[in-house]
Amino acid sequence: MSAPAARTRPRKLPKQAPAPSPWAGGRRRLRERALKREAVILAAARAFSHRGYHNTSLDDLAASLEVTKPTLYLYVPSKEAILFECFRAGLAQIQATLEECERADGPARERLFAFIRGYAAAIVGDFGWCMLRAEDQHLGAVMSRRIKLLKAGIDRRMRALIEAGVADGSIRPCDTKMTAFALAGALNWMGHWYREDASLKPREIADRFIDVFNRGLRGRD
Amino acid sequence: MSAPAARTRPRKLPKQAPAPSPWAGGRRRLRERALKREAVILAAARAFSHRGYHNTSLDDLAASLEVTKPTLYLYVPSKEAILFECFRAGLAQIQATLEECERADGPARERLFAFIRGYAAAIVGDFGWCMLRAEDQHLGAVMSRRIKLLKAGIDRRMRALIEAGVADGSIRPCDTKMTAFALAGALNWMGHWYREDASLKPREIADRFIDVFNRGLRGRD
Repeated sequence: MSAPAARTRPRKLPKQAPAPSPWAGGRRRLRERALKREAVILAAARAFSHRGYHNTSLDDLAASLEVTKPTLYLYVPSKEAILFECFRAGLAQIQATLEECERADGPARERLFAFIRGYAAAIVGDFGWCMLRAEDQHLGAVMSRRIKLLKAGIDRRMRALIEAGVADGSIRPCDTKMTAFALAGALNWMGHWYREDASLKPREIADRFIDVFNRGLRGRD
Repeated sequence: MSAPAARTRPRKLPKQAPAPSPWAGGRRRLRERALKREAVILAAARAFSHRGYHNTSLDDLAASLEVTKPTLYLYVPSKEAILFECFRAGLAQIQATLEECERADGPARERLFAFIRGYAAAIVGDFGWCMLRAEDQHLGAVMSRRIKLLKAGIDRRMRALIEAGVADGSIRPCDTKMTAFALAGALNWMGHWYREDASLKPREIADRFIDVFNRGLRGRD
């Protein structure tokens, strides 16, 4: 509660204000620019998800952000580049949850299941649709190759998590590659049905998927 | 072995050949038309799958079939209608295997697994890509609604097969809806990776998926 006392004390101002650093200003401008760029990408992700990539023009996007199309070009060079950034943002979310699960303690099966929960949340997030339904085909060869590399990296690390489970005994020996594909498929497919059937929360869906993948379907033989 | 004897007997020709039935000719023409229409749809499915829907024009398609664009219009009214037929052809394959599994004898779990094998074959078939990667968004509202109804029908019947398994004890009690979504997701996702990684046959992939879904991943606890 020292604030009132502090206020009574007259502030000592420097005799001469230091010249504003052009670098400090530059940093602020860069930060503002980055924030605006993020806003453009997020708005685009939502528009692509709502109307589809081909049905969304940069004019629509500019209008939704209440700027002109030339203003958009200050932040992104092309519609293709925006789509690439949407892909990247979605994949970054999955990478982040993957890193967390890789670093965590405990049996790999539990860490795999934690990853499934994070993955499900990312899929129904803002960039999920772009990641899944916007085709790589909409991207040129260079950007498409980069996305494929990012995806392949996630797949490889997911498989390594399953292999770690087989090694620590928490996962029974299985075809780790096909298991990773089955898991990724079940989760990615949420992007296709979730918007029309959101009767469960992503966490609840993930938990039911985990139950199926953990215990299997086998009843009496 | 009466054929040689039969041949020695002179054939009795009718004095007057019957007038060719315009209906018989009509039937032949209809059959030929249907075959040509199927060829157009198959060529389109392959082109869409190879280059993407938006990157394939009716001119490209006509050229690949060595006909003119006006000739194409004799068989299909529009590119959208072709895409619709591609969807329908793919879904029809899945429906056919579903019917077979519904009618078969044996525990529902085995019938579900037989369905998984047929589904995997359909997904990597000619129409698989269109079914999965060509967006419903490319279709107008009416056609999109019809495709959704067809898909919902397949989902409902797949779920009924799982419920039958729970009822006959071959499948343990589970969330049948989420189980159907997880299975469909794992299988549909093949359409995204199979072309680039076809190191296993669809039947082998299906069998490994079945292993995961049947026994689960749980190792030691």
